[in-house]
Amino acid sequence: MVRQPVVGVMGGARVSEDVEETARRLGQAIADEGWILLNGGRDAGVMRASAEGAQRAGGLVVGILPGRDKDRRVAEGVDVPVVTGLGEARNNVNVLSSDVVVALPGGAGTLSEAALAAKTSTPLVLVDWEDEDVPRLLATYGVQASSVQESVRRIQHLLERA
Amino acid sequence: MVRQPVVGVMGGARVSEDVEETARRLGQAIADEGWILLNGGRDAGVMRASAEGAQRAGGLVVGILPGRDKDRRVAEGVDVPVVTGLGEARNNVNVLSSDVVVALPGGAGTLSEAALAAKTSTPLVLVDWEDEDVPRLLATYGVQASSVQESVRRIQHLLERA
Amino acid sequence: MVRQPVVGVMGGARVSEDVEETARRLGQAIADEGWILLNGGRDAGVMRASAEGAQRAGGLVVGILPGRDKDRRVAEGVDVPVVTGLGEARNNVNVLSSDVVVALPGGAGTLSEAALAAKTSTPLVLVDWEDEDVPRLLATYGVQASSVQESVRRIQHLLERA
Amino acid sequence: MVRQPVVGVMGGARVSEDVEETARRLGQAIADEGWILLNGGRDAGVMRASAEGAQRAGGLVVGILPGRDKDRRVAEGVDVPVVTGLGEARNNVNVLSSDVVVALPGGAGTLSEAALAAKTSTPLVLVDWEDEDVPRLLATYGVQASSVQESVRRIQHLLERA
Repeated sequence: MVRQPVVGVMGGARVSEDVEETARRLGQAIADEGWILLNGGRDAGVMRASAEGAQRAGGLVVGILPGRDKDRRVAEGVDVPVVTGLGEARNNVNVLSSDVVVALPGGAGTLSEAALAAKTSTPLVLVDWEDEDVPRLLATYGVQASSVQESVRRIQHLLERA
Repeated sequence: MVRQPVVGVMGGARVSEDVEETARRLGQAIADEGWILLNGGRDAGVMRASAEGAQRAGGLVVGILPGRDKDRRVAEGVDVPVVTGLGEARNNVNVLSSDVVVALPGGAGTLSEAALAAKTSTPLVLVDWEDEDVPRLLATYGVQASSVQESVRRIQHLLERA
Repeated sequence: MVRQPVVGVMGGARVSEDVEETARRLGQAIADEGWILLNGGRDAGVMRASAEGAQRAGGLVVGILPGRDKDRRVAEGVDVPVVTGLGEARNNVNVLSSDVVVALPGGAGTLSEAALAAKTSTPLVLVDWEDEDVPRLLATYGVQASSVQESVRRIQHLLERA
Repeated sequence: MVRQPVVGVMGGARVSEDVEETARRLGQAIADEGWILLNGGRDAGVMRASAEGAQRAGGLVVGILPGRDKDRRVAEGVDVPVVTGLGEARNNVNVLSSDVVVALPGGAGTLSEAALAAKTSTPLVLVDWEDEDVPRLLATYGVQASSVQESVRRIQHLLERA
């Protein structure tokens, strides 16, 4: 049996409409490729938009929630809510469970996930990050992309190499 | 949107063939009902058998793994491996993520999951447990079943009540 | 350097005055032996009472808290609050961090900790548990005690054996 | 009762001798102030050196270990090993348990801890970080210091404000 690859999409809960639109199209592209989308599951920002995009395209969406309650504040597009009750410690579960981590712009949580990807040797794609937001360690460890199309090519490449 | 219920099946990694057969049939029944099967994901005992049963029946199987490595020792029937790296602390993720926890015979890990179900107010069905293995607290909190068919009825009832 | 042994005291947040008194005297006895007391850190029941007893006797008390907030609801007697934000998943941290786990009467959380002690091969003493509360697995794995004095002897013995 | 502040010292397991020397002197300064030192507990780099410095000065050292085994690879200077078994997810415990997080130079783990400090609103001091290693978010959120003496003043100030 060949298991479908899991692509983790990280990014902020409060982001611009442009970033949300990128997340939505990335979610759709991930579903179109036949990959499972994994994200933080909450009903906000990149999590909500990427889940929505993947769901519309018929993909499977797994949401790794920080809180203890499955019903409240889960993004509509999540098929399988995993309720960790771990708070931010669940960020490491997001990373370990992903074959490739794709980080869109976000805040401190997203930065921690990109760092944990490097720490755990999980392949990492940074999409649309501004230079000042990328510390040297991530610039060296990750690959960068500036469009959904380029992101998908990067993910494909990283999955083949894995 | 109505999300599919998640039924968690817990039980030992080293169990008798009879218990494995029950796990396999329970996994199949869960898939037949259209429920998502969640278990501990490892390639052993109740985890392997329940995943196999659900997969054969076309169901979706989520495996919440204790270790850090997705590829090694994941049961064949698992569609979505969630890699927690939490060790036994992942038992609480199993319980929180399940709408109903069904505990087959097992060892100390299974006992901890049944206790955590009670602690977190997650509905609990004990299947084929011997009386000496059931402490008063679980006898009071959980419901008991002695066949796959009875287990399914108990789960249905608990899901309706939730 | 010889590090002081860590004795974990588990037990309910809502218990009788008798159990609280046992917890207080056990905390004191642990401090008198020069052992570090570890517990769940909350300002309730066995956690509060055991911390108070150990502190009065000049011992060191480490409280492993389930929540995210260090200031609220920490027992007065705790010297070092460890703030996990893990919810019930912190029960496994309690057990792994203890050289010996002593479980006083409690509810589902305490039962999960006793089970996790067995799961992780951590020595276990059950104090004043009634027979109906002890499943076969714990009766076989743990040792039982019915007084503070007997508990201390059991702990000493288990620490020597470790 | 006034509890002693807990100062978390983060930093790499493989660092230069200069960074280790800074960690040792910072550990000593923390103990001299009467603060509890908390770190990652392992017998390497900043963890070992800061624990050693604090222990020599008579301070209390708490080590939050990622693995499951208390005896192996704990830094000599750790008084209380907390064994989490959480892997990198323990980084969030480090941060939540600290009244102030001080991050010395390190790798991806240290970067994740600085990010989690920002995420959880824990005061953060970056010591001797090079500009290219500091993403905009951390430059904005944290305060920077370039000597042990300056770090201590920063910590004092942040503790007073808390």
